[in-house]
Amino acid sequence: MALTGPIVLTDNRYGKAENRVVRFYKENARHEIRDVNVSTTLRGDFEAAYTDGDQRHVLPTDTQKHMAFVYSKKPGLDTIEDYAIALGKHFVDSVDPVSSARIDVDSYGWQRVSVDGAEHDHTWVRQGPEVRTAAVTVAGKGAAQRRWVIGGIKDLVLLKSTGSEFADFLTDEYTTLAPTHDRVLASSLVVQWRFAEIGGFDWDEVYAGIRATLLELFATTYSKALQQTLYAMGTAALERFPMLAEIRLSAPNKHHFDYDLARFDIENKGEVFWAADRPYGSIHATLARADAPDAGIAWQP
Amino acid sequence: MALTGPIVLTDNRYGKAENRVVRFYKENARHEIRDVNVSTTLRGDFEAAYTDGDQRHVLPTDTQKHMAFVYSKKPGLDTIEDYAIALGKHFVDSVDPVSSARIDVDSYGWQRVSVDGAEHDHTWVRQGPEVRTAAVTVAGKGAAQRRWVIGGIKDLVLLKSTGSEFADFLTDEYTTLAPTHDRVLASSLVVQWRFAEIGGFDWDEVYAGIRATLLELFATTYSKALQQTLYAMGTAALERFPMLAEIRLSAPNKHHFDYDLARFDIENKGEVFWAADRPYGSIHATLARADAPDAGIAWQP
Amino acid sequence: MALTGPIVLTDNRYGKAENRVVRFYKENARHEIRDVNVSTTLRGDFEAAYTDGDQRHVLPTDTQKHMAFVYSKKPGLDTIEDYAIALGKHFVDSVDPVSSARIDVDSYGWQRVSVDGAEHDHTWVRQGPEVRTAAVTVAGKGAAQRRWVIGGIKDLVLLKSTGSEFADFLTDEYTTLAPTHDRVLASSLVVQWRFAEIGGFDWDEVYAGIRATLLELFATTYSKALQQTLYAMGTAALERFPMLAEIRLSAPNKHHFDYDLARFDIENKGEVFWAADRPYGSIHATLARADAPDAGIAWQP
Amino acid sequence: MALTGPIVLTDNRYGKAENRVVRFYKENARHEIRDVNVSTTLRGDFEAAYTDGDQRHVLPTDTQKHMAFVYSKKPGLDTIEDYAIALGKHFVDSVDPVSSARIDVDSYGWQRVSVDGAEHDHTWVRQGPEVRTAAVTVAGKGAAQRRWVIGGIKDLVLLKSTGSEFADFLTDEYTTLAPTHDRVLASSLVVQWRFAEIGGFDWDEVYAGIRATLLELFATTYSKALQQTLYAMGTAALERFPMLAEIRLSAPNKHHFDYDLARFDIENKGEVFWAADRPYGSIHATLARADAPDAGIAWQP
Repeated sequence: MALTGPIVLTDNRYGKAENRVVRFYKENARHEIRDVNVSTTLRGDFEAAYTDGDQRHVLPTDTQKHMAFVYSKKPGLDTIEDYAIALGKHFVDSVDPVSSARIDVDSYGWQRVSVDGAEHDHTWVRQGPEVRTAAVTVAGKGAAQRRWVIGGIKDLVLLKSTGSEFADFLTDEYTTLAPTHDRVLASSLVVQWRFAEIGGFDWDEVYAGIRATLLELFATTYSKALQQTLYAMGTAALERFPMLAEIRLSAPNKHHFDYDLARFDIENKGEVFWAADRPYGSIHATLARADAPDAGIAWQP
Repeated sequence: MALTGPIVLTDNRYGKAENRVVRFYKENARHEIRDVNVSTTLRGDFEAAYTDGDQRHVLPTDTQKHMAFVYSKKPGLDTIEDYAIALGKHFVDSVDPVSSARIDVDSYGWQRVSVDGAEHDHTWVRQGPEVRTAAVTVAGKGAAQRRWVIGGIKDLVLLKSTGSEFADFLTDEYTTLAPTHDRVLASSLVVQWRFAEIGGFDWDEVYAGIRATLLELFATTYSKALQQTLYAMGTAALERFPMLAEIRLSAPNKHHFDYDLARFDIENKGEVFWAADRPYGSIHATLARADAPDAGIAWQP
Repeated sequence: MALTGPIVLTDNRYGKAENRVVRFYKENARHEIRDVNVSTTLRGDFEAAYTDGDQRHVLPTDTQKHMAFVYSKKPGLDTIEDYAIALGKHFVDSVDPVSSARIDVDSYGWQRVSVDGAEHDHTWVRQGPEVRTAAVTVAGKGAAQRRWVIGGIKDLVLLKSTGSEFADFLTDEYTTLAPTHDRVLASSLVVQWRFAEIGGFDWDEVYAGIRATLLELFATTYSKALQQTLYAMGTAALERFPMLAEIRLSAPNKHHFDYDLARFDIENKGEVFWAADRPYGSIHATLARADAPDAGIAWQP
Repeated sequence: MALTGPIVLTDNRYGKAENRVVRFYKENARHEIRDVNVSTTLRGDFEAAYTDGDQRHVLPTDTQKHMAFVYSKKPGLDTIEDYAIALGKHFVDSVDPVSSARIDVDSYGWQRVSVDGAEHDHTWVRQGPEVRTAAVTVAGKGAAQRRWVIGGIKDLVLLKSTGSEFADFLTDEYTTLAPTHDRVLASSLVVQWRFAEIGGFDWDEVYAGIRATLLELFATTYSKALQQTLYAMGTAALERFPMLAEIRLSAPNKHHFDYDLARFDIENKGEVFWAADRPYGSIHATLARADAPDAGIAWQP
């Protein structure tokens, strides 16, 4: 089946990745900090750059970098979602060949340093490892323009020391795993949620609410499998936050193995574990409202 | 626009990631090594595990791990593509609820150690950073079964010290970049190619040929932009290897900035550069034959 | 000056690195977690293993691994310092050829998940990136035995948005840096403190106190250089905690560069910065009490 | 034992870390590349910067960065050792308060791309993961000046599939490891060698020779333990290269565990292994000529 058809450029995109923008608000002595990693991706009429090396439609990625910084000043970085919408809109509205722009933002957490019990005005300590994310897509010119916002959190490491089992699973001739009715459940979650709409609510409040919901359901769901836990987390998030259309959860099962102390005549009643690195289970779930508006190119990288 | 529709599990998958399998062939004194990182991903009738915690359809990821090792023994790891096809087929053919299986393999390179000018029989030194990859999908039971093979290479770091320019690009009021007619071009490439067919050629030969083609075109193409270089690389690969349906190239533009020595009265004629980390340009291209067979779920993670 | 003297094994050591021990306390419904990374290093009469391949004095690193887990059960991991002392003592006291043992512990932080305003009994979310450390050395048998404890913290990322300058520095013909009287000061600190004594205080309280002191001084010291800030932090720690003999501070100067927005007619009043990765300044300071007991082999890896 | 003595700054140093210098030689069409990561560290009369925030003796790390680039132009980066000596000498000779300078260089390997069987003039592909290193210290002014050069290699990953055992080791009540007379031996080596002298030989030749020696001895030594292998490697290097005073080898024992296939009625004759990440053995050896000149501050970071 040797192919003989002409060769076609079927997809292309380009941008500037990982612009490390730090923005302070210094209106008064109590400063505010926004610490973000911004990536821009443009799609549009760029084919000639590939096929002929013709750059006349290509806005340099260096200019895209400038815009990531410029827009952090004004309209500013009050919320990463509004910032990303404005930045995406800039590229689509102001740069002719651009048909759609995607803006990815990672936002790092900082906690004010405490001095004599009071929060310091201009000093912070990094909080992590969890990172808040946003992925905004703006597509189309003028009245036909559409926008999608995906909020998220990543590197959210959760662990529970009981309330988790794994049993009654499918077995075949190669299955050696013993069922367990009490195990450690741990994961480093990546969760993304697509908004059905923009506006009418506070981005930060919704983020805090979804994060709290994810943590709560991880804690309170008696887990028969990580699959079930993810489903419970996703369902609760969609139920409590009606502005959400869809949620995607990706979760490594970070295995903790009971350490065999019995060979040394020591009893290990679920107290001593070895935290393994690799391999790990890898569980994914996508949940959506049946009446969710279409995702369009929201999930396109 | 508060959504009220029922919540639906619209997608799910699970598997065991990063099984570090090392396989030796020791039929004679001159041993052979295969050093791979294998991830398995299953799709199928697993909804009850999410919605009800019912594991009766769920083959443990621990069993999937066993299979990655078992299949490295037999049929073996002669080529990662045939190994991945066999492993994927096992899950679809032998495990009832599985509708499709995806097997991802990273293969690490090793070079025989040289002793007195001769290659040693059983000692190697790691080669890198580049990694050979394969992503195989097997879907459907019996006669309806389909298979897709995606070969690839990642962390392929290339650099050329001349023969690259970037000029005549689009400018706006925020563009400060000066055009250049001689710059360093460097990237750490991720390339994946989808095969139109399976069989009738040697996996290793085709891999070596595509790799050589990518390197050659990067070297010999006078580059008016990284976009053009990627297009030239992809076109040549498709032209020379008619068993390929499609190729995807992803390339950070690893910037090397001229270091300003003139302020110290030292001339820098394209000799001294600062290699920057972030931000970096990010360029993508997908090329396909117009008569390529459909990709089906080949690119689904 | 070709050397002709005999070749001598002048130093050697061996151990098991990065044992990932997770220990729960489950005496009641409110569980406690200790999540640590333990490395053991032994010195002693092991020369024959090197020179002759004679293993008769070599306790396998596999056995050392067992002990890291065994000792987490009993005496347990109430504090990492007491755990490390006990583990180190075990090797020196029970394994004949061992003359000294060093135990390194990294301790990861976890915060209880909050559900309806209450702390959950058995679910946590990882806190970081900062990590608490301990490095304990036990040397010598019987009455001659000595012990050293080094506490510490690493990956402590601090930032202040004002209250920092760098001016009036040495200049030469290659110096182009402009003095600044208001800059961002940021670092990812590694700090280690050597205790003059063991016992008579609470390890956790002292740790919390030193951490708070480091944060406070970073915040409140008007900084004329990172050097001065480190000195202020170290001095305060030694002054407030008389059980400390010595403190070592290692601090990359994580540069934040003003982003030039003036070229776009936008004023940047210390609001918009680019956070650079490399290169970075690298500042070190060691402070000690003049009457500190000798460090012996406490700092030997 | 509360300490009451005055607090003293007992050690300090500062510099600029990880200057990513790329230097091309373009005298003719066949270009040459040097790709290095340079860190500078200065010691000297800098105490006032710590105690009083007085910068008058402090050469900015920004200026140190400039010098790393300036010196790559001239005298140039023909060898990293001569470059580092010149750069270190610059700081000590030209900057009054500097008493000693340490220059650390990592050098990344590049291989010319092959086009139609010929090496390309100006295009390369990265080789790794191994990295060549140098650590040079220059101390003292004028006639009293001393210099030390430490060469090295890191991330040198070696593996042998047979010719390695571990047996007849010390056992205690906690030892469960079975002796083995045929195992995989693998490590990621960090090796550093101190030169007894400077000059009279070719840096690149000696580097290539030591690297080849390390590989050869790893391959040809029947290993009764990694300790013995390191000793054999170090001894051979010192014996063959009389300009070396001392060699330090640091080697994780990267465990490869036989995968138990017998439970599936499959024979595994040393063919299928699981490559584990953590924990790992950690073995160190230092060998020196008995008549080696003193190391002075050569090993001081």
